[in-house]
This record gives sequence, structure tokens and C-alpha cells, in this order.
Amino acid sequence: MFKLYYSPGSCALAPHLALEEAGADYQAIRVDFKASEQRSPQYLQVNPKGRVPALVTPDGVLTETPAILVYIAQMFPQAALAPLGDPFRFGIAQSFNSYLCSTVHVAHAHKGRGTRWVDESDTAAIAAMQRKVPQSVAAAFELIEQQLFTGPWVLGERYSICDPYLFTLARWLEGDGIDPARFPKVAGHTARMVERPAVRKVMVAHDG
Amino acid sequence: MFKLYYSPGSCALAPHLALEEAGADYQAIRVDFKASEQRSPQYLQVNPKGRVPALVTPDGVLTETPAILVYIAQMFPQAALAPLGDPFRFGIAQSFNSYLCSTVHVAHAHKGRGTRWVDESDTAAIAAMQRKVPQSVAAAFELIEQQLFTGPWVLGERYSICDPYLFTLARWLEGDGIDPARFPKVAGHTARMVERPAVRKVMVAHDG
Repeated sequence: MFKLYYSPGSCALAPHLALEEAGADYQAIRVDFKASEQRSPQYLQVNPKGRVPALVTPDGVLTETPAILVYIAQMFPQAALAPLGDPFRFGIAQSFNSYLCSTVHVAHAHKGRGTRWVDESDTAAIAAMQRKVPQSVAAAFELIEQQLFTGPWVLGERYSICDPYLFTLARWLEGDGIDPARFPKVAGHTARMVERPAVRKVMVAHDG
Repeated sequence: MFKLYYSPGSCALAPHLALEEAGADYQAIRVDFKASEQRSPQYLQVNPKGRVPALVTPDGVLTETPAILVYIAQMFPQAALAPLGDPFRFGIAQSFNSYLCSTVHVAHAHKGRGTRWVDESDTAAIAAMQRKVPQSVAAAFELIEQQLFTGPWVLGERYSICDPYLFTLARWLEGDGIDPARFPKVAGHTARMVERPAVRKVMVAHDG
């Protein structure tokens, strides 16, 4: 039994979907960001970073989305969620997810989490960051569309841990002021994702 | 034969050190950032992201430091650079490197790469970002010092791909206005690292 701590619509959606696709026995536990529950002493015992996702495993707690996704792929090899036996293709999968984590998610975070990088009193700088988000996020999705996405799934014919992660971050495009139709391959991917039974089931916890 | 594209002192130092520790047959190719060589048509053919590191392998090019590090560990299993056979411990290694990539490196990058996240004409916002760097980077190293670092190496008794990456980012502390002595475990780690023959050899290309 695994426990996944998540906040609706956050990047924790990616491992949530991966657990469901893997057929894992898991419990999804909602962390209420509006009540700052991620900063509560109880939650900081689970994840000292005060963020989601956090996956409680029989061996301990794992944090950081790319790490959790690979762990799920390794623990449920029958689900074939990553090219585990091929170092180069696994490297491509890891590279894709690392780009989502450290470039795409970070660019997006400058809209709502600017105080990570400037003082909260500096409202002009926070506004300057927010103004740049449509440009920086779109540039990253342009690279995904033109260079990184194979199709029909991220890595090609086979669905992998890259797919729920791309789906999760692509859902933020409209809120970032970007028309998803600018990226037809990514938009087609989103359309294929929402047809998957695992996605339909899990989205109830994130949208419902 | 591998080719590693690097810029001196950049995060490409981490895979450079890992290749050396693994005993790999590789060539390190310097990319001259002062001449904007990373934006040249030739280099963009290697890495469309216009960044380093990029590792040319017999199967193709890999980018993103955490992905390259794991690839090296998998291609040179005799060097035992990652707990490849244990999904949870491998997950901890991946989580550590993902944190370095998406939180520590990103916090640091707000000093010199602010135009990724605000318009380059917005000099006040760029200055506001720079002012926050000592605080945001130090907070991340505080978490490493208190929670993530086991000792004597990052994961414990065994040297791994987490060690060259931590070493690489800890070298940026002083330039970010942070006294490395504030983090005694990390400082001890740096001292152990510089004694390693592989580190002494590779540093010539980065400091020399």
C-alpha cells in the first residue's frame, strides 16, 4: 500500500495517474494548500520541503516528481511505464521529465510562486515575473512540440511515465495565458490522455 | 567513445566528473559561452536547448544533468555509481539530484540568468532576483545539510552520482554570497571530493 500526498491540479497529478495506470494499491491524501496544510508540523514530518507530491512507500518517503515516476515504473514493471532495460531510451525519458521539472514547471511557477525568487514585498518584480510567464512557458512548449515529442505518446508508440507528466503541465497552459492550440501535437496528446480510463478516474480527485 | 559538451564551472562539471570516475573513454569539448557558442547553429544541432551539458553517445545525444548522470551509472555498472538494483534507494538518489536541478540550480540561476524569467529591459526586477539569491540558495543548502545529506557521501558510505552534482553546486556558494562554512557537512564533503584523483584531474579543465 502506497500513500500519495497531493494537491488538486498540482504536479502530483502525474504520479497519481502513474499509480492508477500501474494498478497500484494506493491511497491519495489531499493536502489543503488553501489552509497552508503543507506547512503544518504533521505534513512537514512527511515532507520537510512542504511541497507535493510525496509518496509514502514501505521503505520510506520519496519526493520530487521525476524520482517518484521512475520508482512507480520500477515497482510495477508489468505496466511497462518506462524503457527500463535500455539506458539510452531510459535516459531520453529521464531527460524529458527533467526538462518538465526544472524548466517548464519552474517557468510556470513564476506566475504564482514568485516569492521563491524575490522578496514578497517587491510587488513590481513579482508582476514582472508574471508578465514573462506566457513567453517563457510557450517557448518551452515550442521546444517540446518541435523537438522532444515523438507521438502518439511522448516517447513514441508506447505510453510511459512521460505522458502523465506532460499532460499535467499542459493543463496549465490556458491559465498561463497560452492557447493550447498553438501546439497541435501536445493538444492531440491531451485529447488522447483524457480518453484513458485511469485519467477519467483520477481527474475526479483533481477537478471534482 | 562519448563526447561531453561543457562550459567551465557549469553544472556540466557533474557528468564530467562521473565520466572520469567511471573510467569512461570520453572527450570533453568546451563550449565558449563568452562567444555565445551555445547559440551557434553548429551547437544547436547538438543540443537545441542551447545549454550544457550535452552527452553524445553511440545512440544519440542526451541532455539534462540528472538524466546524463544516471545514464553514466547504468553504462558503467562496475563503477557502482548508483544503487541501480534497489528502486527505493535509487529513488532517493534521483530525488536528491532532481532537487539540485530544479530547486538549487534554479535558485542560483536567478543571479546570472534572470532574463529567463523577466524581460531583459526590467533591470529592477533582475536586481530584485539577485538580492534574493543568498537567501533562497542558503535555504536549499540548509535542507541538504539538515535532511538530505547522509555522510560521508551524499547517500552514505558509498560514493554515487549525487556526489559530483552536490560538489558542483556547492562550488557556487561563495559567488552567491554565502559562506560555505555555514554548512559543515557540505563543506566536509567538498573537502573529501577535492582529494579524489578524478576530481583533481577534471578540475584542470574547469578552473585551469
